[in-house]
Amino acid sequence: MADPIIFGPNYSTYVRSVRMALEEKGAAYKLHEVDIFSGENQNPDFLARQPFGKVPAFEHDGFQLYETDAITRYVDMTFEGPSLQPQDARGQARMTQIIGIVNAYAYPPIVGKLVIQRLVMPKLNETPDEQAIAEALPDARKVLAELERLIGENAYAAGSHLSLADLQLLPVLDYLSMTPEGGELLAEVPRVKALHAKLAERESAKRTAPQL
Amino acid sequence: MADPIIFGPNYSTYVRSVRMALEEKGAAYKLHEVDIFSGENQNPDFLARQPFGKVPAFEHDGFQLYETDAITRYVDMTFEGPSLQPQDARGQARMTQIIGIVNAYAYPPIVGKLVIQRLVMPKLNETPDEQAIAEALPDARKVLAELERLIGENAYAAGSHLSLADLQLLPVLDYLSMTPEGGELLAEVPRVKALHAKLAERESAKRTAPQL
Repeated sequence: MADPIIFGPNYSTYVRSVRMALEEKGAAYKLHEVDIFSGENQNPDFLARQPFGKVPAFEHDGFQLYETDAITRYVDMTFEGPSLQPQDARGQARMTQIIGIVNAYAYPPIVGKLVIQRLVMPKLNETPDEQAIAEALPDARKVLAELERLIGENAYAAGSHLSLADLQLLPVLDYLSMTPEGGELLAEVPRVKALHAKLAERESAKRTAPQL
Repeated sequence: MADPIIFGPNYSTYVRSVRMALEEKGAAYKLHEVDIFSGENQNPDFLARQPFGKVPAFEHDGFQLYETDAITRYVDMTFEGPSLQPQDARGQARMTQIIGIVNAYAYPPIVGKLVIQRLVMPKLNETPDEQAIAEALPDARKVLAELERLIGENAYAAGSHLSLADLQLLPVLDYLSMTPEGGELLAEVPRVKALHAKLAERESAKRTAPQL
């Protein structure tokens, strides 16, 4: 059986979540780099895999797939290794909820605005848009407070074990912590901060560190 | 055990997907109407359930939850009745992918622009924004073509049986079909059109028809 292939840039949080799922399973995989800053995600080859031009795309044994949540669940069901999903209905629900919250409420302000302006723009020799950053901070603060509430006394995001919710969170928290504003924001949410520190120590996190 | 309660307006596609999941399970539930047009989703009571002000929120036996995908999966795992998820990894993946596609690529142009302008604005005595509609049509066409491809020869959206993917799709397709543009768009995607017609015949669809 062929190794799965991930199509996308190593610096994408969504690509990293998929890679971390495979790393946690101990599964071999290939990363086919697709650079979105140079527009490779709009090339016909990539659009044939993901017609909306978003990353990552994925292939395993002839099965083509996209949407990170679909890929990570597929990885969890298909490969040997520890389960990455709670087995009970409430734990499953909380995991799915947190994945949804990361996508809908955390990614847009934290990555789409703060991280892009603070970490990416300087790499492109552009000046950060301070207005966009100022707009992002209240939204970032709100979603972090809600994650703090939902994590509660759990050892991991969605319960007592590592799950796909943690793998969706880590790449976003990692980038957040690299911004000047991140330290202050994370200091306000000690459970989220502690979870980030714990997850960042995992081999799966270290082996997938982005090369921005 | 108390009946689950859905908090949100009957006319929301996301509320309808959750209701349809409960109807397909044959489970009793309560709908607590929260009108978003009058801003009830910004009231403190509602924000305590869903801090981002989106619908629906959900409660069952003291367990509070939001994010439609999390709720429908919880419903499927918790209540008796036919399974609403494929059991194999590829079917599961396709279901999750289609749910993601509906949320990320179908809802924004079809509901967020076309349906709001064509069906909602006239109810509010507002003039439809033809520019917004013109912008929505290519995006709507693109996502419908992709759904047509993914449905392929399947009897339902994600395989041979009804799944949560169908319940996410039906409310969006139903609204689309009520717009003047919907007929032409659906005529271009015969599998999607046939699936819509089949799903619209279900009791779960009839019992949850929106009252706009």
